[in-house]
Amino acid sequence: MRALVWDGSQARVVPDAPQPGLLPGTALVRVRLAGICSTDLQILAGYMGFRGILGHEFVGEVVEGPNELRGRRVVGEINFACRRCPTCASGRTRHCPTRTVLGILGADGAFAEFVRLPVVNLHRVPDRVGDQQAVFVEPLAAAFQGAEQTASLQGGRSAVIGAGKLGLLIAQVLATRGDHVVLVCRGQASLERLEARLETVMRRLDIERSSVASVGRGFDLVVEATGDQAGLALAVELVKPQGAILLKSTVAGQHTLDLAPLVINEVRVIGSRCGAFAPAIQALAEETISVSPLIDAELPLSDGIEALRRAGAPGALKLLLEPSA
Amino acid sequence: MRALVWDGSQARVVPDAPQPGLLPGTALVRVRLAGICSTDLQILAGYMGFRGILGHEFVGEVVEGPNELRGRRVVGEINFACRRCPTCASGRTRHCPTRTVLGILGADGAFAEFVRLPVVNLHRVPDRVGDQQAVFVEPLAAAFQGAEQTASLQGGRSAVIGAGKLGLLIAQVLATRGDHVVLVCRGQASLERLEARLETVMRRLDIERSSVASVGRGFDLVVEATGDQAGLALAVELVKPQGAILLKSTVAGQHTLDLAPLVINEVRVIGSRCGAFAPAIQALAEETISVSPLIDAELPLSDGIEALRRAGAPGALKLLLEPSA
Repeated sequence: MRALVWDGSQARVVPDAPQPGLLPGTALVRVRLAGICSTDLQILAGYMGFRGILGHEFVGEVVEGPNELRGRRVVGEINFACRRCPTCASGRTRHCPTRTVLGILGADGAFAEFVRLPVVNLHRVPDRVGDQQAVFVEPLAAAFQGAEQTASLQGGRSAVIGAGKLGLLIAQVLATRGDHVVLVCRGQASLERLEARLETVMRRLDIERSSVASVGRGFDLVVEATGDQAGLALAVELVKPQGAILLKSTVAGQHTLDLAPLVINEVRVIGSRCGAFAPAIQALAEETISVSPLIDAELPLSDGIEALRRAGAPGALKLLLEPSA
Repeated sequence: MRALVWDGSQARVVPDAPQPGLLPGTALVRVRLAGICSTDLQILAGYMGFRGILGHEFVGEVVEGPNELRGRRVVGEINFACRRCPTCASGRTRHCPTRTVLGILGADGAFAEFVRLPVVNLHRVPDRVGDQQAVFVEPLAAAFQGAEQTASLQGGRSAVIGAGKLGLLIAQVLATRGDHVVLVCRGQASLERLEARLETVMRRLDIERSSVASVGRGFDLVVEATGDQAGLALAVELVKPQGAILLKSTVAGQHTLDLAPLVINEVRVIGSRCGAFAPAIQALAEETISVSPLIDAELPLSDGIEALRRAGAPGALKLLLEPSA
């Protein structure tokens, strides 16, 4: 099958990757659409030391698996847990210490014609949610997770640093729950692009936009969604004493940071990764969150390398890959 | 008056520091005993850029001030707030943006014969609490603050990294509230010193001791109280997914750290600084927390430089200064 493979030094689209083999408790999914995430680009920079087929955001249809799923459109939670250890028994399966993670850790991903996942990881997609919406379930679930981890700050002043695809999802989720949200852009160009593309969404949700230079201070919550090292230092500047920073970026390599302000100002830094899919599917079905304006382009998987390049360009939003094309 | 002064390059005991001048709303306190904190040593390494009389842990008696306080033994909260700004109005006076801080930021400290504080910062010391106990109120209040910030983890498995004076107070506070506490020492020598000195306290509170090499993983709460850069990286290793790290050390300079594990494991890092005095005074009055075994020595203020040196030696615990001697 066609697949986009990372071998540790080069990403290539190959025509002849082996189709995933049969495994009990799993389903084989024909990928209809997959999304490129910043984590994919981080992997190309060395993050997680992953080798194999990239991709963890997808929507597809089950071609082999339980009767009730066969032929259905599904999305898939990306952490494959053992479901036997104490961590799994406590319900925290996303943190299973022996987990594999789709396209990130020890499990081939979804930038391919077919992908195999445990049946328990699959969620049916309602008919009224199109493929171009459903492909956002995974990152939107991560955005909802951030909101859940900061539930005590609901209704406060929140700044989201980084107007990328994840930042734009989180800003919407926080605005929807009643926060006063300021989206902080780190360049005038990206601020203008954003206005042009997302004005309707921003206006509907009353999300303010600001440059770094003109943004205020003293936010109850600052979401660090920049995808780079500078984000956390800025977050520390913007957050109020005893406020919280939600840390979303997983950046390959070491950060250098003065931690004293965190202690002096008694700030909480909350790491946040993946979330449950149900609230994300519901939000897309009810159209409370807009994802279509985040799509830059949809390319055939055969143009996957070009798509990765475009996804890494400054100001890029979501690039989608169509494996059957 | 005699005082221990830091001029930015040298610490000296001077015989002729000017006595603090009269200011409305303040009281003049004759210092009976003062304690050396790791923060004092950090200031000598450049932390906060402070210049002036060092020292923020003390017990003294009011010699000039309101009638009801004159002649009374007091301890003093160290943050001097404006009590007019929105932060103060919200009750978070310790985080007043224009605050000064005793012996740390813009206010002369307590390594002197006399110190002046706002009357609202003073707390009377019950007769049954001796000077050698009362001088621990400030760091013990900080330990209780850490417990309050992690109240949701009460009764869980907690590791305290750093068996210094602050770590030993926090370990006791957490054990008292019902946590299963492991105190992690970073050297066999300090582990043995600790056993010799604090065995009774540890046994009474059922606090386990461990070296770094043999400590387990997966703690609900890890307290970073090492006072140096390596502490946080170790804390990240020891904490369980979705657990919390309480960050107590204020270290001068930049930390280098891989932040990805915080995001992947959805860990909370909670900065923690000062606390309210009331619970600390009560704990000392009720003798639920032992502080006497933490005292290395009590020296006259005239030997203050020697005391600072001893306080900075590996494995040192609390050095006390007696200004009248």
